Amino acid sequence: MTRANLTIDPDRLWGTLMETAEIGGTPKGGICRLALTEEDRRVRDWFAKAARDAGLELGIDQMGTMYAIRPGRDPSKKPIAMGSHLDTQPTGGKFDGILGVLAGLEVMRTLNDAGIETEAPITLVNWTNEEGARFAPGMVASGVYAGEVDQAWAMERQDRDGIRFGDALEAIGYRGAEPVGQRRFGAMVELHIEQGPILEQEGKSIGVVTAAKGSIWADGRVLGRESHAGSTPMDMRRDALMAFAEFALAAERIARENGPDGVATIGVVEALPASRNTIPGEVRFTLDYRHPEAEALGRMTQAIDQALASIGAARRVEFAIDRFWNKAPVAFDETVCAAVQNSAAELGYSCRTMTSGPGHDAVLTASVVPTAMIFVPCKDGLSHNEAESATKEDCAAGANVLLRTVLQLAG
Amino acid sequence: MTRANLTIDPDRLWGTLMETAEIGGTPKGGICRLALTEEDRRVRDWFAKAARDAGLELGIDQMGTMYAIRPGRDPSKKPIAMGSHLDTQPTGGKFDGILGVLAGLEVMRTLNDAGIETEAPITLVNWTNEEGARFAPGMVASGVYAGEVDQAWAMERQDRDGIRFGDALEAIGYRGAEPVGQRRFGAMVELHIEQGPILEQEGKSIGVVTAAKGSIWADGRVLGRESHAGSTPMDMRRDALMAFAEFALAAERIARENGPDGVATIGVVEALPASRNTIPGEVRFTLDYRHPEAEALGRMTQAIDQALASIGAARRVEFAIDRFWNKAPVAFDETVCAAVQNSAAELGYSCRTMTSGPGHDAVLTASVVPTAMIFVPCKDGLSHNEAESATKEDCAAGANVLLRTVLQLAG
Repeated sequence: MTRANLTIDPDRLWGTLMETAEIGGTPKGGICRLALTEEDRRVRDWFAKAARDAGLELGIDQMGTMYAIRPGRDPSKKPIAMGSHLDTQPTGGKFDGILGVLAGLEVMRTLNDAGIETEAPITLVNWTNEEGARFAPGMVASGVYAGEVDQAWAMERQDRDGIRFGDALEAIGYRGAEPVGQRRFGAMVELHIEQGPILEQEGKSIGVVTAAKGSIWADGRVLGRESHAGSTPMDMRRDALMAFAEFALAAERIARENGPDGVATIGVVEALPASRNTIPGEVRFTLDYRHPEAEALGRMTQAIDQALASIGAARRVEFAIDRFWNKAPVAFDETVCAAVQNSAAELGYSCRTMTSGPGHDAVLTASVVPTAMIFVPCKDGLSHNEAESATKEDCAAGANVLLRTVLQLAG
Repeated sequence: MTRANLTIDPDRLWGTLMETAEIGGTPKGGICRLALTEEDRRVRDWFAKAARDAGLELGIDQMGTMYAIRPGRDPSKKPIAMGSHLDTQPTGGKFDGILGVLAGLEVMRTLNDAGIETEAPITLVNWTNEEGARFAPGMVASGVYAGEVDQAWAMERQDRDGIRFGDALEAIGYRGAEPVGQRRFGAMVELHIEQGPILEQEGKSIGVVTAAKGSIWADGRVLGRESHAGSTPMDMRRDALMAFAEFALAAERIARENGPDGVATIGVVEALPASRNTIPGEVRFTLDYRHPEAEALGRMTQAIDQALASIGAARRVEFAIDRFWNKAPVAFDETVCAAVQNSAAELGYSCRTMTSGPGHDAVLTASVVPTAMIFVPCKDGLSHNEAESATKEDCAAGANVLLRTVLQLAG
């Protein structure tokens, strides 16, 4: 095979997905492989051996992130990075993160088999603790790498049993000596399942991820007046729940008006005093809204504030909203995105540009490395679930796009 | 004073309200006088003594309901009854129920002072356990009286400590020998605070209660699809909470369309899995809707079902609704209502007809005795609350209407 028609081996890739899925595998077909546990150690050992068997050089930094390096012809060139994470949620699936690492391994093996040399080195990365399920928050290693999270602080994070991140890392033998962030890459490409329903519903194989949505998380409260459900006429009510309902629909409308990328979700709601024959005097709720463009996110914020003010005035209730978390949108690198798009087109895969709702290591690295992501469909958009599923064909398509993109970027 | 210009003594009435409020009085100015407790015994003893001091004959039935009888000229005539209840909620106020009994006592004293004889006897009733706060359900003695509740079943009700109703009644010495329901009345009039905001907001002193609302209680459930808040576009969602919000506003609209007497309330709501970044796949809620006319209540049910069906179809969610409790509306007696209305008019009180949302002993007796109710305003419509409040003037106005109504009915 030549560079022009080089493709990965779908069965070999699928084999590694199924083989490593045994490490922490659950009876329901998922994986429980929390960061820095014995299961994480075992999959890291597997990965280290596979990397060495592929002739790759292994580096481990002080956050435990693993780098498997394939040299290039020109050592002065910054390496092209690919990768994701091998840790999972407690009831996680077989693809979230894992596909990005194992497809990277498959790319390395394919390059080896074809005897292809690249100009720039290629580095396959397994980022530590992307999920944050055992040690919150997630994406902590890529966060330290990008200079957005303090390393000493990260080391002190504790799990539910009071075990420190640093100690757990030490205990599984993956606390490297290498300072975090010293490796700088020419580009970084992360292949991941979409974790959403768009590609599947549109029958597309590849998503070129051009941006990660910014998100705002808020806690909301409505204060109305508690009164008797039987004796208070509708016109005399200050019903906190009905005001909430009107706001919920306003938030939905605002997201639609900023569609297709704008989304708004109310995940938690509680009415007080929670008695079936008392008109709620108070409602508490959460609000999560996202958009890949900072300007549109600002417009959504404005529209939400307007809705709160007008509903509050009309219904004589008070709204309070605390936006306690604000994550700015991240635009991925145009050149890297174009490389992904070209690769998908050359391979003849159906493809669309899209944005990412969930966070990823790539969203962190984007601030210091030209970065992009490749999405492949997952069944019913389901993720963080043992039933998470992707087809062999889609995984192979993603890996082929990864291969071609990396080849294009590495030269 | 003659019958024509006879009025009660506002200060004496107020004095009895304040005096008995000490029995079970709370630091916040309310009353905790649960049925068949030591406090209930003490207020019953107070009432029995006051009745005897007023020359009234006392009867007690097997449910502990107390009857204080003022003879009429014609013993063959059925007595005209007035009354309410002396038990309270755990954090109850000084007026709910109590006003109806003590105003009746004030009527008796006023008739005595003026030396007035009536044709029919007059009976003042203190119904046992109207609140149902210690022994659920409430209105159990008037329920047995009306033949709507089984007496043996009522006797077996238990409080939180497993104490039986019958035993508690025995223990405070108020288990009478008289069979329940043997006393039949020519009419029954219950004076009560409104427990709602209408009279206060309209600046009216007297409500002529022509009917009690029927009520339907339901548990509702919405089944949508749980999915990721960041990666699921608005158009691909089956958001159970947004469907709920749309239904809540539909229920509100339906109540308004059946106004001013139709009401609908959602007091409890819970979204699952209750995670701020997961679109709710399920919502559980309660629904309480009421109307004083059976036909309108039926129309509301139909409109609610239509709303559930159309919102469910449009949003691809499933609604399930379990109407587990259906209390039919009760129309009060036209002759007794007219007597109340005439009395209020003769006394020059501002007055309106209205319906009762909450249940009352009078709602039960209405099925066997021509019955009506008189409402007086309470502050902010507040009841079942230690801050429950009514003015001396309004209490006196209600007692005067009660006096005149009873005189008119008793002849």
